[in-house]
Amino acid sequence: LKTYLDCVPCFLRQALDVTRQVCGGNEEVTERVLRRVLEATHSLRFELPPPYMGRRIHRIIRDETGLADPYAELKRGSTQTALRLSDTVEKRIGESTAPFRAAVRFAIAGNVMDYANACGWDQKQIDACFDEALDRPVDEKALSTLEESAKAASNILFIGDNAGETVFDRILIQHLPADTVTYAVKGSAVINDATREDANAAGIDRVARLIDNGNDAPGTILELCSQEFCDVFQSADLVIAKGQANIETLHSCDREVFFLTQVKCPVIARNLEANAGDWLVEHWKPDTAAEAPQ
Amino acid sequence: LKTYLDCVPCFLRQALDVTRQVCGGNEEVTERVLRRVLEATHSLRFELPPPYMGRRIHRIIRDETGLADPYAELKRGSTQTALRLSDTVEKRIGESTAPFRAAVRFAIAGNVMDYANACGWDQKQIDACFDEALDRPVDEKALSTLEESAKAASNILFIGDNAGETVFDRILIQHLPADTVTYAVKGSAVINDATREDANAAGIDRVARLIDNGNDAPGTILELCSQEFCDVFQSADLVIAKGQANIETLHSCDREVFFLTQVKCPVIARNLEANAGDWLVEHWKPDTAAEAPQ
Repeated sequence: LKTYLDCVPCFLRQALDVTRQVCGGNEEVTERVLRRVLEATHSLRFELPPPYMGRRIHRIIRDETGLADPYAELKRGSTQTALRLSDTVEKRIGESTAPFRAAVRFAIAGNVMDYANACGWDQKQIDACFDEALDRPVDEKALSTLEESAKAASNILFIGDNAGETVFDRILIQHLPADTVTYAVKGSAVINDATREDANAAGIDRVARLIDNGNDAPGTILELCSQEFCDVFQSADLVIAKGQANIETLHSCDREVFFLTQVKCPVIARNLEANAGDWLVEHWKPDTAAEAPQ
Repeated sequence: LKTYLDCVPCFLRQALDVTRQVCGGNEEVTERVLRRVLEATHSLRFELPPPYMGRRIHRIIRDETGLADPYAELKRGSTQTALRLSDTVEKRIGESTAPFRAAVRFAIAGNVMDYANACGWDQKQIDACFDEALDRPVDEKALSTLEESAKAASNILFIGDNAGETVFDRILIQHLPADTVTYAVKGSAVINDATREDANAAGIDRVARLIDNGNDAPGTILELCSQEFCDVFQSADLVIAKGQANIETLHSCDREVFFLTQVKCPVIARNLEANAGDWLVEHWKPDTAAEAPQ
């Protein structure tokens, strides 16, 4: 997906909110970040997906705050919150007549643990998401196709998104019958996206082979990813990608991908013919590109 | 008041919304405006009030759209809407036990007719504002001081804000006992602020001497105003200024001013120790500057 004019004020809004959040409201640091982000917008290429700019913004924030992983503490908190919920989630999936589909729904519920599009979430939002997880409307046909594809696949790549959310990804992976599941995280810290450390804290290492994608952009910008990641991406029988940034970056890639996400922004929502707040099971196939929204 | 970091994303958001509104959603024109506004933010001086930047943005919009007064049609519509309401308003003021105070409240209600902070208003918002006009909490002490000052003044300057709102300013002026009331409008078009033409359409010429301030900034940036305006501003016994942009630009001036406005932005609200949505009768006196929020 491309970057829209509407993304520009949103980039600046996020840069302000995020910097204040991670630097304790220091307005001098915040002003330096804002000025550098404004400068960066000059060379903004609208034909590229928004995560290109997201990457630049979060590099500026890390540089100006001097924090290599500004969300480290918040990410640890997210994982703790998710782990506390995990027994209940596993119990509800176990009691479900369609455990795989239930596990997919809880993995989408976990996508609420996001600091990219707002200043985070609170316990109330989490509870609401998980309470309604089994009742939220999603594309049942795409969910059926995903279930069939998962049964047929012996080699699955699961691309993660946020720390904390990883706990529910781990639970979903336990319902994937494939011989090999590879779980991909970011190469280094960006926003509250999961890194190796966060994935291990969620127990991913117990259920999947862990790799990182070799870079620090939100989503998956293939041209920035390591050769190792790209090889796994191309050779997997099935790719499942979590989170909106993965739709932004992979929604025109040359292979089939299943996206699982909550839709967080009205611009992306419009592009996907959805509404902000919707839960998506989105089946991307390159040969349907002509009909699919771009 | 100074410009805040938070004003920057808001400037860009407004530039997008306003341009699309006045150019029929032409995205090429909108992108050119956005790029020029981004450029302008480079030389943004945060120590100056936000209307300095507002003026630059709306100059860019007029330049790129080729429209000398992009809001001309919307302003005419606002005046028609206000004129339709005026009989009811005059009747409710006439029936009030405190007609002057009621007229002040309806003048603040009229400040809803604003296109600066959002993409305008609808009939429902107008109706809500006018229905509750007599019950909205305002600073009753400041309102009493204004009433006494108005009784004592023989020479009043009334600084207008938006087209349409002018109709209710005219009704308030009819309750001012002063010998001379001067009504000031913008020197040329900016947003939907009233110009001479809009003031005349509201019947201001029947109740006041009409002047313009000689420039196209929102609010009243004295250093940009004509000598004629500045002379009237300094020599008036009483100055009443409508709208948030007048607080932004005159809240540290060297003379007493009564501000009547609805508070439209959370940043300005915080600065004034108010909330967005509040109705303000704000009594500014330079010798109280030490205690007043800056």
